[in-house]
Formats: sequence, structure tokens, C-alpha cells
Amino acid sequence: MSKITNYSLINMLMGASTKQGNDIAIKSRKIVKSLIKDKTLHLTPEERSIVERIVHSTADPEYADLTKISNDFVKKSLKSLRKGKDILTDINMVKAGVNSYGGDVKCYINHEETLKIAKKDDITRAAAAIQFAAAAEFNGIVVIGNSPTALLEVLNLYKNNKMKIQSVIGVPVGFVGAKESKEALHKTAIPHLITQGPKGGTPVAVAAINSLINLI
Amino acid sequence: MSKITNYSLINMLMGASTKQGNDIAIKSRKIVKSLIKDKTLHLTPEERSIVERIVHSTADPEYADLTKISNDFVKKSLKSLRKGKDILTDINMVKAGVNSYGGDVKCYINHEETLKIAKKDDITRAAAAIQFAAAAEFNGIVVIGNSPTALLEVLNLYKNNKMKIQSVIGVPVGFVGAKESKEALHKTAIPHLITQGPKGGTPVAVAAINSLINLI
Repeated sequence: MSKITNYSLINMLMGASTKQGNDIAIKSRKIVKSLIKDKTLHLTPEERSIVERIVHSTADPEYADLTKISNDFVKKSLKSLRKGKDILTDINMVKAGVNSYGGDVKCYINHEETLKIAKKDDITRAAAAIQFAAAAEFNGIVVIGNSPTALLEVLNLYKNNKMKIQSVIGVPVGFVGAKESKEALHKTAIPHLITQGPKGGTPVAVAAINSLINLI
Repeated sequence: MSKITNYSLINMLMGASTKQGNDIAIKSRKIVKSLIKDKTLHLTPEERSIVERIVHSTADPEYADLTKISNDFVKKSLKSLRKGKDILTDINMVKAGVNSYGGDVKCYINHEETLKIAKKDDITRAAAAIQFAAAAEFNGIVVIGNSPTALLEVLNLYKNNKMKIQSVIGVPVGFVGAKESKEALHKTAIPHLITQGPKGGTPVAVAAINSLINLI
């Protein structure tokens, strides 16, 4: 694809395929921009377009405060996507939301081997699915929209050189472990995007990865 | 399935399939209960279990204030599910999140006829997908987790006796039309669950329908 010159415009249309769909997407993006403008001044244009899309997808301006993006996240993620490397998601809801990517989007939560690993090691299915992906030589962007235990498994495998990771969108949600798992990712050298605190979830994850795909 | 005696317990496990998964789900539900207890005292046990699951799924206690459930929603929805009637979702992310339902879960957003209808009438694909479902004699629970135009199309078809609807989970998200579409549903006689204001989305929709499925 040719060089992008207007990140916000490209990212504004968000999969709309009719004039009415486009009109709604553009109107929504303008409202989002006005709501969070002051909170996104420090971001690059690419980063700003990602945060705007997250706020658009959740209708929750608090995400402009909660979203933290490491300096190398956009660059490393776009490089991975341009090479057509895989995307790995923790649950099928995230996979179902990924639009128009030329490469593979993988999710092993319902794979029969995943359940075997989970039962054998008494871990969550989401964590077992990450183990399975690493064993299957995954290499690309990891997108965690739901499960803190999946994110912790990613960090553990990365630390032990057992998983090839280009970047991580780490936005698990919930009151048990989500905050801590994201803080742990934020302390690593892995290129990443997180949401601070318990909030996050599949729409945030999908907004972030689709923003990046629209930028390649 | 036998009669449910403890809605919270049944609804607490939320698809977890290992001991660790169960432990996290139960711990999370206890935290949610303590956060929103005072706001759910007026609800029936079934309604309370739905709202708790929405707050669990979003880690956002504000949904205890925003969620409004019509008196007949639980009864009519459970009747529809027990008869094995269809579930219709506006986007595939919602469909991907529905767990363990014996009946069909339908989504026509990517159907080739849907795009034809959308282009011909210059409406959104989400609205066209609802038209297609009605023409295909859908009868059951409609779950709108994303698109205000899809929800408005449901209301329009219902008003004109062109769509058979047992209940509607209407939680579209966004700054353009979402609030208004939910207010319009709230004024009808259709058994419904909504979230007031711009907030809502696929995790809210999925939490609500999975709560109901766990109660049948």
C-alpha cells in the first residue's frame, strides 16, 4: 500500500463500506477528537489515531488517560504487519473483530490440545492457548483483550526465550489480576500498548490492532 | 436442564473450565458484588446476576447505573432460549462471544445479500443485515452490541410487523446515535435490556446473553 499521509482520515473510516457508514464514522471521530484533544497532544499522529479509535469504540473518554504506548510500539508493530507476520489473540471475540489483515490471525482457546494442557497443568485455557502458540513457533503481535493469565504467560515465555514476540497489545480486563499483569508488561522491554487499571477488554484490543492494520 | 436455585453461583463460573479459571471467576464475582451491591437491591436475583456479569466483563461499575431492564425481559428471554429459538447478533464479535447455546446464533453482516441491500438502499451493512434476517423469518432474541443503525432497523421492522422478536438486548456503543437508539427501544413494549447513554458494546451484549443462557 502507498505511504499514508493522513492517519486520522485513514483510520476514521474503520471498515465502513457505505456512504451512511462513512458519514457516521467521520462524525464520531470528530466528536472523539474534541473530547480528548488535550489528553493526546503529547502523542505522535499514529499513536493519537490509535487512542482516538479506542475511545470511539468504547464511547469512554477515560481511555485517553488509561492508554499507555511504549515509544517503539507503533514502529515495531507496523514492521511485523508489513512482513505479514501472525497475529495471536487470547479469545475468539478479538479474532472476530480483526478486519482485513492479509496475514493469519490465530486463536487457540478452543483447540483440543489447549484443553489438555490446561487440565494437565491446572492453568486457565487462555494461558494454555498461549503455551500452545509458542510451541507452534508463533512469531508476531500478541493481542490480549480478556485474560490476565494469558498475558502473564506471554511474559513468562518471553523471559525464558520460548516465544517470539514483535509487540503486545495487553489490555486484559477485570478485577482479578488484570491491573497487575498490565503493570508487569509495562515494565518489560517488549514494545507494548496497555490500559492502566482494571479496565480494558475486547473492543479496546480490536480498536488497537485494527488501527495498526489501517496504517500499513 | 433442572431448575436453577442459585443464580449467582451458576452465573459465576462464566465458562471457566479449569480450577484456576473457576477460582478467578468466583473471586471476581465477589469483588463485583461488593462494588455494586447498593445499586442492585431493587433487582430480581436473575436481573442482578446479569448486571453483575456485565460489570465483571467490563470492570466498569458504572454499568450498574446505566443498565435498565424491562420487567418482562428475563421471563420472555428465557422462554425464547428454552424453546431453542434463534439469537441474532449485529456483528461477528458478539456471535463469537456467545457460549454453549443449543440453538442457532446468526449474524449476517458479511452475507453477500447484506452488502447488496446496503449499497442499493444506502444504509449501513449492520442495518441491511437486520433487514436480511427479518426477510429470512428470524424469530428470537436480537442482540445489538455495536450498531445504533441496526437497533433502529429492528425497531422499524417490529413497528411494521415485519420482524418476530422475543426480546432485544440493545447496547450499541458510540457518540453518534447510540444513546437515541437505546432511548427509542426503552419506550417500546418490546422486552429489553439497554445501557443508557453512549456506552455499551460487545462485552456488555455478550455478558447479557451469556447470563441468560446460563439461567436456562
